[in-house]
Amino acid sequence: MGKNRLEAFSDGVFAIAITLLVLTIAEPSDYRDLTHQLAERWPSLAAYVVSFIVIGIMWVNHHSIFDRFASVDRNLVYLNHLLLLTVVFLPYPTGVLGEALRQGHGARVAAVVYSITMTLNAFAWSGLWLYASSGRRLLVGSFPEDRRRPATIAFTMGAALYIAAIPVAFISAYACLAFHGLLALYYALDPVARRSARSTVPAPAFQREDEL
Amino acid sequence: MGKNRLEAFSDGVFAIAITLLVLTIAEPSDYRDLTHQLAERWPSLAAYVVSFIVIGIMWVNHHSIFDRFASVDRNLVYLNHLLLLTVVFLPYPTGVLGEALRQGHGARVAAVVYSITMTLNAFAWSGLWLYASSGRRLLVGSFPEDRRRPATIAFTMGAALYIAAIPVAFISAYACLAFHGLLALYYALDPVARRSARSTVPAPAFQREDEL
Amino acid sequence: MGKNRLEAFSDGVFAIAITLLVLTIAEPSDYRDLTHQLAERWPSLAAYVVSFIVIGIMWVNHHSIFDRFASVDRNLVYLNHLLLLTVVFLPYPTGVLGEALRQGHGARVAAVVYSITMTLNAFAWSGLWLYASSGRRLLVGSFPEDRRRPATIAFTMGAALYIAAIPVAFISAYACLAFHGLLALYYALDPVARRSARSTVPAPAFQREDEL
Amino acid sequence: MGKNRLEAFSDGVFAIAITLLVLTIAEPSDYRDLTHQLAERWPSLAAYVVSFIVIGIMWVNHHSIFDRFASVDRNLVYLNHLLLLTVVFLPYPTGVLGEALRQGHGARVAAVVYSITMTLNAFAWSGLWLYASSGRRLLVGSFPEDRRRPATIAFTMGAALYIAAIPVAFISAYACLAFHGLLALYYALDPVARRSARSTVPAPAFQREDEL
Repeated sequence: MGKNRLEAFSDGVFAIAITLLVLTIAEPSDYRDLTHQLAERWPSLAAYVVSFIVIGIMWVNHHSIFDRFASVDRNLVYLNHLLLLTVVFLPYPTGVLGEALRQGHGARVAAVVYSITMTLNAFAWSGLWLYASSGRRLLVGSFPEDRRRPATIAFTMGAALYIAAIPVAFISAYACLAFHGLLALYYALDPVARRSARSTVPAPAFQREDEL
Repeated sequence: MGKNRLEAFSDGVFAIAITLLVLTIAEPSDYRDLTHQLAERWPSLAAYVVSFIVIGIMWVNHHSIFDRFASVDRNLVYLNHLLLLTVVFLPYPTGVLGEALRQGHGARVAAVVYSITMTLNAFAWSGLWLYASSGRRLLVGSFPEDRRRPATIAFTMGAALYIAAIPVAFISAYACLAFHGLLALYYALDPVARRSARSTVPAPAFQREDEL
Repeated sequence: MGKNRLEAFSDGVFAIAITLLVLTIAEPSDYRDLTHQLAERWPSLAAYVVSFIVIGIMWVNHHSIFDRFASVDRNLVYLNHLLLLTVVFLPYPTGVLGEALRQGHGARVAAVVYSITMTLNAFAWSGLWLYASSGRRLLVGSFPEDRRRPATIAFTMGAALYIAAIPVAFISAYACLAFHGLLALYYALDPVARRSARSTVPAPAFQREDEL
Repeated sequence: MGKNRLEAFSDGVFAIAITLLVLTIAEPSDYRDLTHQLAERWPSLAAYVVSFIVIGIMWVNHHSIFDRFASVDRNLVYLNHLLLLTVVFLPYPTGVLGEALRQGHGARVAAVVYSITMTLNAFAWSGLWLYASSGRRLLVGSFPEDRRRPATIAFTMGAALYIAAIPVAFISAYACLAFHGLLALYYALDPVARRSARSTVPAPAFQREDEL
């Protein structure tokens, strides 16, 4: 029971957080020049799209990872809460980054805050995976042992890449936003489904679909 | 599993987006003349009602289309995310259109933005259907082959009709809003349930209900 | 399938609408005199509580009524959308009424708008019931025929009582708010579970619980 | 049926309330000095984190308590609505407390309001438990009788501790916020799973996980 409930609750939080993103785009302040007002809000739209993709891919990975769990315990519930804490917070830095880019002030600071949020999020993912997979604590028996290490490496690499986003933010907020878009695509390649280098034969396409 | 989860997540996003629409109606700024303040907000109410109907019908069609899928794969999940991206965004142009009509400034621009959002949404629907139905990739065996082409035509026509809304927006924002209301009704006639012209015998009423 | 899906979607909309009510209480504008600022917001708190009870009871009745449906058809889905349209809108008049009472301006107008919203909602309930119950169109076989008329009367009476709230609003906004609280309690006595006058033996307590 | 539905509805409300918390952090008002603006918002972030943990733990306990119920009746539904009323309200005092601490005005008043909200919430929990457990009204047969009293004591103690938070608020708003964080941890030790002092043998770790 615990697992289904936890997944349903997490699904709800993901769905609400992704929908609240639309509130991060500031309403026009002057309708006399609406074309200009809307055009200058394109950074907010870009930040909305990137964060939408980020949360959307996270939702897919959340299922992918939970499919490998045989059960959940109280610790995992609280680790999952920690993860959701960072997901729910994401609309805030998204809104700030979009607005900072529009106003042309504070964009680097905003990009740093966005990157720190995503880094904490990546650490929460790693923590969740490490807790559940170390000693195969919560893993299903069918999960192949030779995929455990690659998954751990993928999560650790992900966290490291998000840390790398912080200095990128200092160079350019736009580059940082693009970097986060690319990082989302890195996670889109399901980290838990990767095999170790030793088993080099890729899974056939139809099986990949089953792994979803 | 994938299909049920994806539907439940999409249901959640549809439910939240449709409920957030109420936030698009601006609060009165002066309570001394509340009757006038509320009366002049009727365009916001009209935009709220149209967008509510639009999302409500989309939700029905989402089920109708997914009922014809035997399973889902990762590509479909991301095509579905693209669709949800446009659904979640809809409250923004809804609010802008209502407020532009109230203020009497920028209404045409707002109607164009609303129409572009809906056009992108229609393209996302078409993409979802084309990906899943071409070569019957994800279709259930029981879906009659003679309904595949009419459904494809219905989705393509829908996208074309939404493009047609853009020039209507240049003529009149009110006409454009009404046009979107009518287009919602076009989609209310379930595109996936239509038969090809050759099979002219309509389904009996009770069967129609089962098709819901 | 249709029925469960429709109930789950409606549940989601009820849950979101009831939660968005908290956004109707205006934030303090001056923190130097916070006690006074919060104290003068008590009408907003009262409106929040009444609307929360209203939506909470509606949610219970929604299940009660859908438990009596053997299936749903496309018309019922759209009648249900009409019902949800009024539920989703409720936070708007709730916020306006609370703020009008706080400012001491426009309270009667706000109470009228609140009452009109609730009247439309009551009509939507009646429409839903009439469509589904006339000729026992969608009713389950086990629903006793002698409860059909009392339920229809209960819904019609409810709509009539909501119309009565409109003149009350003209007398006093506070009285009107209290009236809506009382009307919610009227609906709390499950309209669909009432028996006709002929069957005067009340159901035993434990059976009542099953009827929930 | 009643129980699953009620849990799903409550889950939805918990998920939405926890996600709306992000809206309590005020947007920056001046992007020219964004670092300072964000830094001075740390009390809002702290209030967000505490309230997130509070609602997150409540959600876990809600399942824990409902797992001990064999069924639900109409009274319990309304007691649960009362509980949700206080949960849904929580974002309001959270936002006020964070903002009061930032502005340096009204922080004690805000902490008192926050504490009163949490006290009412604790009473709602106690009421829910007392109604369902007295005379084992709704308890499942497998719930050990020697856990009933400890659970009642745990809920009563919890309510008393929340009352104790009110005078703490008068001393220091920060101390009060920390106190609420600690109280959340008190509830994190599942009140319903505690055994009476007589049965001193603790449950083995793996069984605890099952009890989640």
